[in-house]
Amino acid sequence: MAVTGHTDQGRRGSSIRAIPEATVVRLAGYLRVLSAGVPDGTISSDELAAFAGVNSAKLRKDLSYLGSHGTRGVGYDVATLTAEMERTLGAHAVYPVALVGVGHLGSALAGYGGFAGRGFPISVLMDSDPAKIGTVVAGVMVSDIADAATACRAAAVTIGVIATPESAAQRVADALVAAGVRSILNFAPGRLVLPDDVELRRIDLALELQMLAFHESRRGRSAARLEAL
Amino acid sequence: MAVTGHTDQGRRGSSIRAIPEATVVRLAGYLRVLSAGVPDGTISSDELAAFAGVNSAKLRKDLSYLGSHGTRGVGYDVATLTAEMERTLGAHAVYPVALVGVGHLGSALAGYGGFAGRGFPISVLMDSDPAKIGTVVAGVMVSDIADAATACRAAAVTIGVIATPESAAQRVADALVAAGVRSILNFAPGRLVLPDDVELRRIDLALELQMLAFHESRRGRSAARLEAL
Repeated sequence: MAVTGHTDQGRRGSSIRAIPEATVVRLAGYLRVLSAGVPDGTISSDELAAFAGVNSAKLRKDLSYLGSHGTRGVGYDVATLTAEMERTLGAHAVYPVALVGVGHLGSALAGYGGFAGRGFPISVLMDSDPAKIGTVVAGVMVSDIADAATACRAAAVTIGVIATPESAAQRVADALVAAGVRSILNFAPGRLVLPDDVELRRIDLALELQMLAFHESRRGRSAARLEAL
Repeated sequence: MAVTGHTDQGRRGSSIRAIPEATVVRLAGYLRVLSAGVPDGTISSDELAAFAGVNSAKLRKDLSYLGSHGTRGVGYDVATLTAEMERTLGAHAVYPVALVGVGHLGSALAGYGGFAGRGFPISVLMDSDPAKIGTVVAGVMVSDIADAATACRAAAVTIGVIATPESAAQRVADALVAAGVRSILNFAPGRLVLPDDVELRRIDLALELQMLAFHESRRGRSAARLEAL
């Protein structure tokens, strides 16, 4: 498997560091468009922009971070562009995931199957509940969070996913960080305090629904209101 | 059940419209802090700011959108503040949810249980697969997406959740919109084209993991790399 090599990092280190997060998000989107299949060997910036739903100028700016430049009148070579995006995004490598909290949401995520296919196999499941430790969920045996360091190192875990209640999330995050994990995706509500070198992303299902409820509320469309119509 | 009434809307309509989305997100956070239990009947802006992890000046600005002002030297009355936040956020009402796509992720979300407790009962499940239609998942019978209008109206659905593959998401979104749904939470990757009056929020699990992978890649920490150490 090809991974980001040392020579690449040396050559492109400064430009990688300069990529804004919004550009990284869009690059992931372009990569998805290209992966979905492009009929031709080349694609123009206008075509790719249209598929991805951004304007052409922004797309060209984004692609310039790759150090990649299309040929005027021809466009971008799809294979080259895909390889550059994958290298930049680290999309070609495998990132084993440790998921902590095997309750409703955690079990759901473990059984989802959508992670492994994208290079994020859930290699470690952990919980603190003795009734869950030792059981097998989605083909993986649940370990004790107290053994996080051993479990994460054995599976070369690089990404931690927290699916515990809010009350346990900080303790779990601390355990993951102590186990060497530096990238965490947190599904628990509330705030986590983590070292600066830990990359934290958060998915708050309740908050997303709350934002929709806010908009429905502005429209006066709660269930109670609808029932009264 | 109390809902945002017409008189409230008339009195506070313009200020409601003016609340920035970032403020709404923070208000939901403050409400969560207050709901978690505050020992005293009053709370100072400094205390609430510290609990919520924002600075006091920002908190006071946010609370000013509620039309609520604390008493100097005493702080905010917790019951009043909670009621004002709930009214503004629409957090006191019930928003029945229609979830479409009863695959791995959809079944997981249906069984999660975290929605109903926050006022978002999953009242309608829909799919297009004849093998799934008529089965019962998490206590709800799966309906045919072709009957979306009938099912959504019968249950007074206000929020739609899409958990289908990307290829089906636009078709499903169109069906929900035709059924009168104006707030959609989309878990499917890719872009949806929707009327301007539809509020769309998106949770892209794969993208969140991809962003973490990007950061791990910058650190040179893919699994293949770790194995070589």
